Amino acid sequence: MPPAKEQKIRGQNITALAGGVGASKLLLGLYEVLEPEALTIIVNTGDDIVLHGLKISPDLDIVTYTLAGIVDPAKGWGIRGDTFHALKGLAGYGRADWFNLGDRDLATHIHRSALLEEGRRLSDAAESIRAALGVKARILPMSDNPVPTIIESDEGTLHFQKYLVKRRAEPIVKAIRFAGAESARAASGVLEAIREATRIIVCPSNPLISIGPILAVPGVREQLRARRTDVFAVCPIVGGKSLKGPSDKMLAQLGYEATALGVARLYNDFTGTLVIDPADKGRAAAITALGMKVAILPSVMKTQAQKRQLARALLEL
Amino acid sequence: MPPAKEQKIRGQNITALAGGVGASKLLLGLYEVLEPEALTIIVNTGDDIVLHGLKISPDLDIVTYTLAGIVDPAKGWGIRGDTFHALKGLAGYGRADWFNLGDRDLATHIHRSALLEEGRRLSDAAESIRAALGVKARILPMSDNPVPTIIESDEGTLHFQKYLVKRRAEPIVKAIRFAGAESARAASGVLEAIREATRIIVCPSNPLISIGPILAVPGVREQLRARRTDVFAVCPIVGGKSLKGPSDKMLAQLGYEATALGVARLYNDFTGTLVIDPADKGRAAAITALGMKVAILPSVMKTQAQKRQLARALLEL
Repeated sequence: MPPAKEQKIRGQNITALAGGVGASKLLLGLYEVLEPEALTIIVNTGDDIVLHGLKISPDLDIVTYTLAGIVDPAKGWGIRGDTFHALKGLAGYGRADWFNLGDRDLATHIHRSALLEEGRRLSDAAESIRAALGVKARILPMSDNPVPTIIESDEGTLHFQKYLVKRRAEPIVKAIRFAGAESARAASGVLEAIREATRIIVCPSNPLISIGPILAVPGVREQLRARRTDVFAVCPIVGGKSLKGPSDKMLAQLGYEATALGVARLYNDFTGTLVIDPADKGRAAAITALGMKVAILPSVMKTQAQKRQLARALLEL
Repeated sequence: MPPAKEQKIRGQNITALAGGVGASKLLLGLYEVLEPEALTIIVNTGDDIVLHGLKISPDLDIVTYTLAGIVDPAKGWGIRGDTFHALKGLAGYGRADWFNLGDRDLATHIHRSALLEEGRRLSDAAESIRAALGVKARILPMSDNPVPTIIESDEGTLHFQKYLVKRRAEPIVKAIRFAGAESARAASGVLEAIREATRIIVCPSNPLISIGPILAVPGVREQLRARRTDVFAVCPIVGGKSLKGPSDKMLAQLGYEATALGVARLYNDFTGTLVIDPADKGRAAAITALGMKVAILPSVMKTQAQKRQLARALLEL
């Protein structure tokens, strides 16, 4: 919790675009410095996968568990203190166990899958889980339609989770596809949340496979462009390295520059201000030359205080 | 394990009709005194229920867990030492938690449900679970088709599990239906196993809602009648009381006599020999008068030795 002297920021309605672990640090800061109801989070669902017949939405769960205060703090995903008895049983039945599913976490997947089977939408499931876990921010999947992220690699075509978790991001990425994105529809509230926010924040998530799928949903990128002045993107690459995950490697493999400038080029059409870490201030001029504003703010968030500081600074830019 | 001096009984192929907890005591005895491969078990699936989108087959699991040596010995169902973290999570999401689902046990339900969703049969799932748990007897569901047992009661129409578990068998039973039984087909191997067994044993299960659903599958009762001389039924009512569960109460509510004689009347058309406990020897003459043989054997099985003794005695009749 923030110290008592910190005042909540009022009068802003913030919409954030988010992947999973990288985004959640900043989201937790925003959640604490804002009135939590003033925060709407549009979450990547390209990572979603069906395993053992269960619909798993990793980024939705990471964001929700984080804001609920139950996330495993060491891993940044899953539930703190969870056990893995069911997964061990599934492995005993010869089922894949490369994707970690804790027992408590399984309840989320079972509940979500049951709601979908009953004909409810993914956004209904996200809302049910959010409410049950006591999270006060709005959490919206980018779409109720499946838009699986597919990695074309030197090992062939892989579902994103197989690339990331099973193959530990080792295959060389040749292309990324968001299957079905053309015909997907933004979930109810997504476009409105971008249109009506006082500011839109792009969290420091992988530009290609966390923010990329959200941008691929018809209407999202166009709506962001219409709000470009109010879009603030936090660069997930600091000093040429990912804050989290394989962003740097994937950017390089796909021919993008794995730097803040590379991210700026990817986001330039819809981002008014790119927030970069002081480590990258040498690239500020090149980014500004693209036609974006640059804000230099410490972006490496290790402590709760750093998360709140970046969140507050972002809202006061 | 049986003492070394006990010889396995050879040269018999036994088919047993079974419900859950009551049957499993005798099945364990049979499994130990026979070569385990010589035992085929046809299991009631009228108790099956879909909860949280998962297909749960309580009697199949009780039988399989018992023979695998992993059943919770105090309860007679579930897995020894199981935890209930997922169930607690499901309850937190507002889902029904009246049906106990352990974490390790959930792996079975998830695996079975995933196989069914992939287009496999219930019997394929039973076989996969049996093999993975190292059980050497054949375990066959009575049918691959759903045949849910429906209880018409003074509280209205209830799925059997809601009557038994949620409402603790308290409603007054007015009628029992096996929904869809007319069009169900016996699972592959079921009729053959009755036809080809050297003996058929009806386990001491509830005649109405454990053995009854099996008998309702087209062809089963007829095939049993054709083998009547070789059918040995162990009476589940001893001294007018159920060995396990609400058999006595249900028999009485439906106008049957809740005694060994009442069971004899229900089984007379297909049972050559009714096995009754010494406590009921006073009813032997009345049962014999129906045209059945009576064998008097101690039928209350509290110890492993008693289970083996009854099993051995049954095979030596």
